[in-house]
Amino acid sequence: MEGFRILEIKQSVFESNDREADKLRQELKKNKVFLLNLMSSPGSGKTTTLRATIAALKDEFRIGVMEADIDSDVDAATIEKTGVKVIQLHTGGMCHLDAGMTRQGLEGLGVDDVDFAILENIGNLVCPAEFDTGSVKNAMILSVPEGDDKPLKYPLMFSICDVLLINKIDVLPYFDFDIERCKEYVLRLNPNMKIIPICARTGEGVEAFAQWLREQITAWNAD
Amino acid sequence: MEGFRILEIKQSVFESNDREADKLRQELKKNKVFLLNLMSSPGSGKTTTLRATIAALKDEFRIGVMEADIDSDVDAATIEKTGVKVIQLHTGGMCHLDAGMTRQGLEGLGVDDVDFAILENIGNLVCPAEFDTGSVKNAMILSVPEGDDKPLKYPLMFSICDVLLINKIDVLPYFDFDIERCKEYVLRLNPNMKIIPICARTGEGVEAFAQWLREQITAWNAD
Repeated sequence: MEGFRILEIKQSVFESNDREADKLRQELKKNKVFLLNLMSSPGSGKTTTLRATIAALKDEFRIGVMEADIDSDVDAATIEKTGVKVIQLHTGGMCHLDAGMTRQGLEGLGVDDVDFAILENIGNLVCPAEFDTGSVKNAMILSVPEGDDKPLKYPLMFSICDVLLINKIDVLPYFDFDIERCKEYVLRLNPNMKIIPICARTGEGVEAFAQWLREQITAWNAD
Repeated sequence: MEGFRILEIKQSVFESNDREADKLRQELKKNKVFLLNLMSSPGSGKTTTLRATIAALKDEFRIGVMEADIDSDVDAATIEKTGVKVIQLHTGGMCHLDAGMTRQGLEGLGVDDVDFAILENIGNLVCPAEFDTGSVKNAMILSVPEGDDKPLKYPLMFSICDVLLINKIDVLPYFDFDIERCKEYVLRLNPNMKIIPICARTGEGVEAFAQWLREQITAWNAD
């Protein structure tokens, strides 16, 4: 018997998503909730990365996770095993989440007892980049098998994120992926991007990401 | 000096994309042009698969390729080296191509001397599945590193395609990907899907895809 809810998300009705996103961020600030928006292609390892990150941080923060998918609940079932609060969001075909949809997710999850909320966005490098969800920080994953040229092809996603996790570095020997070349492409688009190579499956590099998150959450609650 | 054009695609103005797609297909039929729409996540190996497929078929068909991307021209530059006709389409942020946009691409490419046209769609498992491009057949690639659960998460894409290439089978030993389980998920959604495991980089399985294409093109020109 699964312990998490599945919430069918409705299309937002707000005229200005940017205004809604700012409003949501102000409310999160007031309530001392840090919201991370995690994005990537399908299959880059978002859920595995979340599991490893939750393991590193769950004794320090009260974590709540929103798993957004067009269909299925496999990700929420995976996250539930970590013991943190989780809700599955179904977007009914929609390719991204905006601020109104994220608000529905947060209300469904319930954040009274959460200080670190995570939205695992739809697997898509295009549309989610165009919609501010109201998150405090945006994180993205690029996995080694996808290739180091992705910043050239999906520049907006690499421009709007605060941190890039280069995942699956354990398979670097089997793919033509040059980390230095990738970093160069990324930093040309986004000089402030924090770049962390990781292997979510083995846990390599995850502590560096956890440390980055600690700093961001502390800063968010401080000012 | 690059020999291919870059065409900035405009948003379509047609009321009914389905009607436009049918109209385009009828014109292609009349002109004996077979149009394949190739879709996948970012980094699944669309361009590498195309290169290998072109090498297998370029002595039998006059091939023309449309490389759709939000930005960059690295894919068109790669395809140009195969010696076939190619055009780079820029969608200016749009996450998919519809029939009107595909028509712009075909006009830009010029198909008077083409009998096998290929559209490499935007890397995205969500939005391109929702728009009929006017293609005769839809092909998709799922690569091993993405995971065998993707049919559960992106059911529409797996439902509307005629052929699925499971790419990067050379790295099967390094990933938890079960081909039989994947096939089962796919065939449950789409019992008519032709499934071909390949490794585009080494060429393994590419001849089976080429043979499938030969049969489809012959059938298209026959009836």
